[in-house]
Amino acid sequence: MFEWIEDGGIASAQGFSAGGVNTGVKTYGEQPRLDLGLLASDRPCEAAGVFTRSSIPGAPVLVSREHLSDGRAQALVVNSGCSNVAMGEQGMRDARAMAALAAEKLGIDARDVLVGSTGVIGRPLPMERIGAGIAEVTPAAGAPGGVAFARSIMTTDTVHKQRAARFRLGEHTYTVGGVAKGSGMVHPDMATVFCFLTTDAPVEIGLLRSMLREVADVSINMVDVDMDTSTSDTMLLLANGAAGGEPIDAQHAGAQALRGAVEAVAIALARELARDGEGARTLIEVEVAGAATQEDARLAARTISSSPLVKTMITGRDPNLGRVMMALGRSGAAVEVERTSVFIGGSCAFRSGVPSDVDYAALSKEMDAAEVSIRVDLGLGEASATAWGCDLTEGYVRINADYTT
Amino acid sequence: MFEWIEDGGIASAQGFSAGGVNTGVKTYGEQPRLDLGLLASDRPCEAAGVFTRSSIPGAPVLVSREHLSDGRAQALVVNSGCSNVAMGEQGMRDARAMAALAAEKLGIDARDVLVGSTGVIGRPLPMERIGAGIAEVTPAAGAPGGVAFARSIMTTDTVHKQRAARFRLGEHTYTVGGVAKGSGMVHPDMATVFCFLTTDAPVEIGLLRSMLREVADVSINMVDVDMDTSTSDTMLLLANGAAGGEPIDAQHAGAQALRGAVEAVAIALARELARDGEGARTLIEVEVAGAATQEDARLAARTISSSPLVKTMITGRDPNLGRVMMALGRSGAAVEVERTSVFIGGSCAFRSGVPSDVDYAALSKEMDAAEVSIRVDLGLGEASATAWGCDLTEGYVRINADYTT
Repeated sequence: MFEWIEDGGIASAQGFSAGGVNTGVKTYGEQPRLDLGLLASDRPCEAAGVFTRSSIPGAPVLVSREHLSDGRAQALVVNSGCSNVAMGEQGMRDARAMAALAAEKLGIDARDVLVGSTGVIGRPLPMERIGAGIAEVTPAAGAPGGVAFARSIMTTDTVHKQRAARFRLGEHTYTVGGVAKGSGMVHPDMATVFCFLTTDAPVEIGLLRSMLREVADVSINMVDVDMDTSTSDTMLLLANGAAGGEPIDAQHAGAQALRGAVEAVAIALARELARDGEGARTLIEVEVAGAATQEDARLAARTISSSPLVKTMITGRDPNLGRVMMALGRSGAAVEVERTSVFIGGSCAFRSGVPSDVDYAALSKEMDAAEVSIRVDLGLGEASATAWGCDLTEGYVRINADYTT
Repeated sequence: MFEWIEDGGIASAQGFSAGGVNTGVKTYGEQPRLDLGLLASDRPCEAAGVFTRSSIPGAPVLVSREHLSDGRAQALVVNSGCSNVAMGEQGMRDARAMAALAAEKLGIDARDVLVGSTGVIGRPLPMERIGAGIAEVTPAAGAPGGVAFARSIMTTDTVHKQRAARFRLGEHTYTVGGVAKGSGMVHPDMATVFCFLTTDAPVEIGLLRSMLREVADVSINMVDVDMDTSTSDTMLLLANGAAGGEPIDAQHAGAQALRGAVEAVAIALARELARDGEGARTLIEVEVAGAATQEDARLAARTISSSPLVKTMITGRDPNLGRVMMALGRSGAAVEVERTSVFIGGSCAFRSGVPSDVDYAALSKEMDAAEVSIRVDLGLGEASATAWGCDLTEGYVRINADYTT
C-alpha cells in the first residue's frame, strides 16, 4: 500500500536534491529552456540501470554502464539538445568530462556520477556550455528541484513528467520518486526515453537490480510511440537508504511493498510518456489476456499498441477493429483465431474469431476519448500483459518532417 | 538478357488471358471501379505461391494454399473491397464458392482455381455480386485484359502496376508478366500486397517453387509502407509452357535467364509498390553492403527503409542522417559503429562511424527527389541487400484516419 505525493518527483525521497539550468545547448524556441540537470544524493546509493539494446549506444550509455558496474552511484548529470552519439573517441571523452565536472562540483568520485544526453545524433557536445551549466546548477530538495530537473531533460515533450509515492514499512516511511522524458527532440531526432527513479529505502544491490529489470518490463518497455528505438534510452534506480532501517533484500518482508511502489511510479510515468507521444491526442492502453505464455502476451500487446493502422484507427475514431486482428496475426504470438475475442472499451468487436453483432456508433464513441482501452482475450492460457501507445496524427509527421537543418 | 514489353502485364505471356469488371463491392468514389478480376490459362500451369506469415490468414489464403498443394493451377479469381478475413466457417465457404463459380465458368476443376480477396476485415463477402461479376467478366489476352485485371485488384493504389519482360532461350522466346497491388484500402484497412506472375515458359515445379521463394525475398519481401503485415498477402507464379520447349529445371542452362526475368519483373513491381505507398511522394531505396551475413544485410536494409524517423527525415528533406544510425542500431544486425559509413545519394554523411565533413545543403538537395538512395557500408563482410520504402506524410495519416464507418 502506497500513497501518491502531490507534486512529487525525483527529489522527493530523503537525501536527494536536483536542479536544472539553461546552457543554450537547446537553442530553439522563443524563450530559454532548461537543458542541463543535476541529481545528487547526500550519501552514496546502491544503483542499477537498464539501457538501450541498440548496437550503436551513445557514449553516455557506455560511460554510465561502466560507472554502474560496482552497483554504486551518487549523482546523475543529464543534458538535452545533443545526444553525444556516433561521435567516436571524442564522444567518450566528452561523456567522461561531464561526469568529472559534476564530480568535482559535488566533491565525489567521477565513477559515482552517471551521465545522460538526448538530442541530435552526430554533433559534438558543446562542452564549454555544459561545463558552465554544471558550475551554475544548484540542486534543491523536494518539488522545486524535482520540477527543474524534469524540465531540463525534456525535448519535444509538451509537459514534464514526474511522480512520487510513499509507503510505510514498520516504523519507517519510504519514498520512491521518478522522472521521465519521452517522445520528442530538439532538432527532430528520436524518441529517447529517460526514466530515473530514486528511493530513500535501503535496498540490497541484488534486489535493486532484479527489481529494476522486472519493473522496466511492465512499464517503460511496454510504451511505444513510433517503433524507433533510441541509442540513448536509459532507466535508472538509485537507493540511498536515507530513511533508515535494515537493508531490504529479496527475502525481506517489505520487498513486495517496495516493488509495488516502484512499479506504480514507473507505470504512471510510462502512461504519461504514451499520452504525450509526439502529436498524440489519445492514450491507447492494450491489455492482452488468455495468452499461452507471458512472452506471447507481451508480444501481442506491444504489436497492437505500436501498429500504425491501429493507431490511425484511433486517430480517425474509426471502428475498423479488423486492424487489431491484423496486428495480432503478425505479432508472432500463438493465436487461434476461433478462440480470440476483441473488445474496445466496454464493447465487443470480435467474439470467438468472428465479428460480433456490433454497434459501430457505440464503438466509434468508445474511441472518442482521451484514453482508449483495447482488450484481447486469446482464450489459450493464463498469461496477460499491458502495453501503452498513442494515436498517430498528422502532428507526428509535422513534428518529425517540418524541420530543416 | 531480357527486354521489357511496352504495356506488358499479367496476360502478356502466351496462353494467358485476364479481365476485370465492376460488381459494386468497392462502393466508394464517384465512378464505378473495377473490383473483380479473373486470370485464366488455356492449359494447366505449374504453379507456386508464397503467402502472408500472419497467424490469422484470410480464408482465400487458406483455400489457395490448399489448391496449390499439387503444384497445379489454371486460373485465379480476385476481388477487392472485402478481404474475407476473420469470418470463420462462412469465410471458408465463400472462398471455396468463388473458386467453384470461376471453375464452372471456365470448365475446369475448382481445385485448379486460386483465390484472392483484399479489403475490410470482418465483413461478409457479398456473394451475389461476386457471382454476377464472375459470370460477366470476359478475359482477353495481352494489354487490354492485363490492364483491366490490374485495375480490378487496386484498393487505395493511385496507379495500376504491371510489368512484363521477354527473353530468348535457344529457339524459344519466353515471356514473364506480372501485376501487383499495394498499400491501400477501400474502407481504410491494411496494405494487402498481391503480386501475381505468369510465364509461358515450361518450368519444373521444384524450380518454380524455389525460384518464387528466392525472388520474393529480394523483391516484394523487401518493400515496406507501414510495417503492418496483411492477413491476405499473396504472391503467385504460374507457368503454362505455352511458348514450347523442354521443361526448365534447376540444372537447365536457361534457369538463370528465367530467374533473371522473373526477378526483374518482381523487383520492378516492388519498386512501384513502394513508390505508390499511401500518401508517399518519394521512393526510398536502401542498400546495405559489407554485412557479415545475408540475414544481417536484409535486416538492416528493411529496418532502415521502414523506420518512421528515417521516413519523416525524407519527408522533411532534413539531412538528419543520425536517424539512419539509430535504425541500424536497433536492427539486430551485427554492427561495429567505427566501421560503418552512411551515404545519401552521392554524399557521405558518416564515415567510419563519425560525421563526415558534411555539406548539409548538398545532403538536403539529395533528398529533394522522386527517388532517394541511402547506402550503408557496414565494413564487416561481403553480404548486401536492397530494400524499398517511401516517405511518411500527413497524407498517410489522412488516408488511414479520416474515415468513419
